[in-house]
Amino acid sequence: MMGTVVRNIRRADGAAIEALGKLGVATVHEAQGRTGLMAPYMRPLWRGARIAGSAVTALCAPGDNWMIHVAAEVLKPGDILVVGCMSENADGAFGELLATSLKARGAKGIVIDMGCRDAAEISDMKFPVWSRAISARGTVKATLGSVNVPVVVAGLQVKPGDVVVADDDGVVLVNRIQALDVARSGQDREKKEATTRTRLQKGELGLDIYGMRKPLEEKGLKYIDGPVD
Amino acid sequence: MMGTVVRNIRRADGAAIEALGKLGVATVHEAQGRTGLMAPYMRPLWRGARIAGSAVTALCAPGDNWMIHVAAEVLKPGDILVVGCMSENADGAFGELLATSLKARGAKGIVIDMGCRDAAEISDMKFPVWSRAISARGTVKATLGSVNVPVVVAGLQVKPGDVVVADDDGVVLVNRIQALDVARSGQDREKKEATTRTRLQKGELGLDIYGMRKPLEEKGLKYIDGPVD
Amino acid sequence: MMGTVVRNIRRADGAAIEALGKLGVATVHEAQGRTGLMAPYMRPLWRGARIAGSAVTALCAPGDNWMIHVAAEVLKPGDILVVGCMSENADGAFGELLATSLKARGAKGIVIDMGCRDAAEISDMKFPVWSRAISARGTVKATLGSVNVPVVVAGLQVKPGDVVVADDDGVVLVNRIQALDVARSGQDREKKEATTRTRLQKGELGLDIYGMRKPLEEKGLKYIDGPVD
Amino acid sequence: MMGTVVRNIRRADGAAIEALGKLGVATVHEAQGRTGLMAPYMRPLWRGARIAGSAVTALCAPGDNWMIHVAAEVLKPGDILVVGCMSENADGAFGELLATSLKARGAKGIVIDMGCRDAAEISDMKFPVWSRAISARGTVKATLGSVNVPVVVAGLQVKPGDVVVADDDGVVLVNRIQALDVARSGQDREKKEATTRTRLQKGELGLDIYGMRKPLEEKGLKYIDGPVD
Amino acid sequence: MMGTVVRNIRRADGAAIEALGKLGVATVHEAQGRTGLMAPYMRPLWRGARIAGSAVTALCAPGDNWMIHVAAEVLKPGDILVVGCMSENADGAFGELLATSLKARGAKGIVIDMGCRDAAEISDMKFPVWSRAISARGTVKATLGSVNVPVVVAGLQVKPGDVVVADDDGVVLVNRIQALDVARSGQDREKKEATTRTRLQKGELGLDIYGMRKPLEEKGLKYIDGPVD
Amino acid sequence: MMGTVVRNIRRADGAAIEALGKLGVATVHEAQGRTGLMAPYMRPLWRGARIAGSAVTALCAPGDNWMIHVAAEVLKPGDILVVGCMSENADGAFGELLATSLKARGAKGIVIDMGCRDAAEISDMKFPVWSRAISARGTVKATLGSVNVPVVVAGLQVKPGDVVVADDDGVVLVNRIQALDVARSGQDREKKEATTRTRLQKGELGLDIYGMRKPLEEKGLKYIDGPVD
Repeated sequence: MMGTVVRNIRRADGAAIEALGKLGVATVHEAQGRTGLMAPYMRPLWRGARIAGSAVTALCAPGDNWMIHVAAEVLKPGDILVVGCMSENADGAFGELLATSLKARGAKGIVIDMGCRDAAEISDMKFPVWSRAISARGTVKATLGSVNVPVVVAGLQVKPGDVVVADDDGVVLVNRIQALDVARSGQDREKKEATTRTRLQKGELGLDIYGMRKPLEEKGLKYIDGPVD
Repeated sequence: MMGTVVRNIRRADGAAIEALGKLGVATVHEAQGRTGLMAPYMRPLWRGARIAGSAVTALCAPGDNWMIHVAAEVLKPGDILVVGCMSENADGAFGELLATSLKARGAKGIVIDMGCRDAAEISDMKFPVWSRAISARGTVKATLGSVNVPVVVAGLQVKPGDVVVADDDGVVLVNRIQALDVARSGQDREKKEATTRTRLQKGELGLDIYGMRKPLEEKGLKYIDGPVD
Repeated sequence: MMGTVVRNIRRADGAAIEALGKLGVATVHEAQGRTGLMAPYMRPLWRGARIAGSAVTALCAPGDNWMIHVAAEVLKPGDILVVGCMSENADGAFGELLATSLKARGAKGIVIDMGCRDAAEISDMKFPVWSRAISARGTVKATLGSVNVPVVVAGLQVKPGDVVVADDDGVVLVNRIQALDVARSGQDREKKEATTRTRLQKGELGLDIYGMRKPLEEKGLKYIDGPVD
Repeated sequence: MMGTVVRNIRRADGAAIEALGKLGVATVHEAQGRTGLMAPYMRPLWRGARIAGSAVTALCAPGDNWMIHVAAEVLKPGDILVVGCMSENADGAFGELLATSLKARGAKGIVIDMGCRDAAEISDMKFPVWSRAISARGTVKATLGSVNVPVVVAGLQVKPGDVVVADDDGVVLVNRIQALDVARSGQDREKKEATTRTRLQKGELGLDIYGMRKPLEEKGLKYIDGPVD
Repeated sequence: MMGTVVRNIRRADGAAIEALGKLGVATVHEAQGRTGLMAPYMRPLWRGARIAGSAVTALCAPGDNWMIHVAAEVLKPGDILVVGCMSENADGAFGELLATSLKARGAKGIVIDMGCRDAAEISDMKFPVWSRAISARGTVKATLGSVNVPVVVAGLQVKPGDVVVADDDGVVLVNRIQALDVARSGQDREKKEATTRTRLQKGELGLDIYGMRKPLEEKGLKYIDGPVD
Repeated sequence: MMGTVVRNIRRADGAAIEALGKLGVATVHEAQGRTGLMAPYMRPLWRGARIAGSAVTALCAPGDNWMIHVAAEVLKPGDILVVGCMSENADGAFGELLATSLKARGAKGIVIDMGCRDAAEISDMKFPVWSRAISARGTVKATLGSVNVPVVVAGLQVKPGDVVVADDDGVVLVNRIQALDVARSGQDREKKEATTRTRLQKGELGLDIYGMRKPLEEKGLKYIDGPVD
């Protein structure tokens, strides 16, 4: 299975991808029933990016970034490269030259379960990167992995063509086929939240807005006037 | 004991709180004999905030943020919400809607031993947050905890009404009753440091300013001209 | 061996140091055969600094910063203080007063395998710091260590007089005697990278520029048209 | 998708399962091209167990073990329960009473990405457990998860019916359909290793047995007589 | 507050301590409403010990074990020494000589939020130790701490005289005054568990014994016959 | 510098090595002024081994164990192989076949800053291993490292020919030339400790044996009769 490159993948509907990107990670995660979120160690290199696109996946050996070069050829404009590693490794598999290449090929960004280097240069380029570490440690090109096979990244199975949404909160995945449904559900959620936000801004309590007082009482919550001691 | 909410707590003197906030975390920590500091994993969501206020405490179950809603009702303007968790957990228990609510109720900020989400939105709002992680992972409202009972947060026992001081260096607690004494001691310390700073800026050495040469010699420090190799 | 201060050390050629600083961490690391990089937990306090200088080393006990004061006397303008710790420890051994002192003595920055405090003040001063943590935890002056002896910092043996290069990517060391050779090799590398960058910007692939297609095929890489499933 | 229990799953051929169990984790992992291994934090509660069986999967909320009870009903004798958690959590979701239940139902063991408690009692029972931690922290029964859906556990996607092999080296998964092929390939590997072992025991070198001298030389390996310095 | 030794403390009822020791950590933790458990990094040096006793507390500086010697004088036969550290530190503050001393003074064991050394010798002595690490790193005697003041250890505030229960599952604390109540509640729990255990051994399901089917259905749990895919 | 094998190294005096092995890790570490100890994550695969020998060093790439095969040829009976890794990596670079080979070549054991696999088999062989992890993850033979050059392992610079002492407490290094002096100093220390042990066994306090009462008083230690609260 190692050593396989799948050239073509199915991608989600473009409008769904765009809508998911506008919603952002936290809303999308909630909209699909609190699933699909990568572990929180996957952090943005710089703050302020929010992207969404189709996942092109790559699987690398530790200390080796060969498959990123292979993936650069098969990705299409608008895609996001998602890179897994065969074992835990923080070496700087992604740097400014690869960022230049991915940008030129139209990639929207990269999510990589290894390290990233040339932090200053890539931040200046405003190329979006989520990684497990910043490390200048160089990598070799010696061991085959695969491209566009399912990979586990930060606790999540990523299939080629899944929709990736990434922002300052981290990275969430949406199944390609469910993308439109999740987008709509997220938009509904946003509308409701807008109303809730207005009420909260006026000082109303979540206890009342969400009707929590009764279930809390039923669970046995007791109030004491205090102060205690 | 779980499932208890104490409505009213004693708070420290307002002038003492204000003075402690001006001093900042490092000075306050030194002023009370190098005690009261939370573990360094408790980090600000955004750089540049410095706040001080009375601790209103909440204790949550892992993956559950119900008690934050309960706490929102009992806190007073100027308070800081301090949230502990029953076991190690980084889920995103605090997001933009709760930040909106706390802000509307007058809270100065939150210190939470769980995760925080909506990182971009809360940073834009300039609502101060210290947390163990940024994570969009949603939480449930299913298990009772308590509000305004003592909780251990980041290696520190927090009692309701303790003064919380938080800035880019982390979070320090001051006992309510000792707040004024610590503030004064910190102000004295600041004055001394101002003099020391001026001397250091001129190139004088700490070795001379603090009188370290003799104790170093007594401990047996030896100087070699060098270079060695 | 503990309790020794070496006053004078050999330093690398000034032009070599300057050249290495311009190259930056990632390039220097590659230029010396992917060696000399500190572990990635050594992070800058603030983004954007890039410095190079001769290492003056100090070894401290956990929770103790006495030897930093001792080192402040023996360092020369342009040096970088590199502080190791006898065991893993994140206490705030370096703060604004010491930063003031080092700056006044001409130090270019500090690399410290302990914590740093007064994060806001030191960032405002623009004094460059790389540390393992930000922590306001105060330290004592009770246990002897050494100055200008070899110390292991973040997985790397640092000898006094080694050239330290540090930027947003981390910290790399260059052997004093090899400094000029490494600088030249790095400059050659930069020139080659400039050409590669231009080709990548035009959309050429690393696969072609680096001649990877043949070795990949020899290793057995297989392409499938897809989509699969 | 949360809140789904799949009662029946397809299982691998019994003879294949038995063969894989005899081979053990390291050999199986190699036999399928170095894939399928869980992250090394998944450790046995006690040393010396080696089991193989079909995966029945469960997904729990942090601090909640409700779905383990649900899974106990659908598993068949010979199965291994594999439990994932929605976020990182070490609470003691599995204890002696559940071990008693699983044993009575015929389960061969459990692999759980949470904590395990009653360590002494379960070790005395010789019920095999692999977990991320030992912790007596109790859990609640409040939030739905799922049973027999794919879950990610210790960096690996586990599908119901996958073959689980676990021993002192950790946990490896084999795809249900490929189980027989992997078993055969592992048996071939074992035979070859037996020959190699005999040669190594006589003092022959891997350099010669595996024919490494030439590729090492081609890569540029240089021998120096030494001693150096 | 640092530098204080309290010679005498109140201890819990001896019969309550004995009863709690028989129950063990997991049962005691449940019996007091799932509170009082230390973080799971606090692990036994050797498997098989189960002890209970009154906490004598000590607070040490990192890399310093002076206060353990001070505490050795004030503890009484049957006590358990609980050692906190001012910051995270794994140095070997407790070794065979101190174990010999504590044993001679009648201490039942030690719980230490630092490292332990002489692992082989102390295991041979069968002196019970729970620690955060095994490390031979030596410590100094240079900085004052305190004895018999409240300390936070492994996420838990320990007050002198609290009952400590420790076994292979970790360490739990019981408030001195509530010790008898908790012991009784634990004994009741054990009786109920004995009945449950018998039913589980016969193959009955927790689903039925605990009446979980209805609440699961109400929450929306759905069963599918499967197999899926 | 990568890709170098030094065939011959200088070794310490055999009697010194033997004496150091008898003393064990903790005593040797103290005897050389609390230096030379590896970080505590370096743990024995099985408890009860205590070995001493000359270090033959190897440096591997992450996920690659090629250089261990190269080192097997140059080591002499009685040596201990010490393996560093270019970046943090826990892959199972050392297994039962390599253990068989090293044993046949007369190696006393291995200290490896990567993972170890075949845990059960190697434990049965009683071949001593200290490693950072147990992991069955297979490694490749693709990237050159070096043999018998200085490497940093677990926070310590190891030079070929250094004396390695390893037991349940971890791993300590002694400089080849100082080995005899350290051994003598350790033997003196052991004699003193024997006297101290006898006094402690009789219930005498360290406070008196070590004369700590006066320095504690001078530092300001205060005794309170208590109980407090």
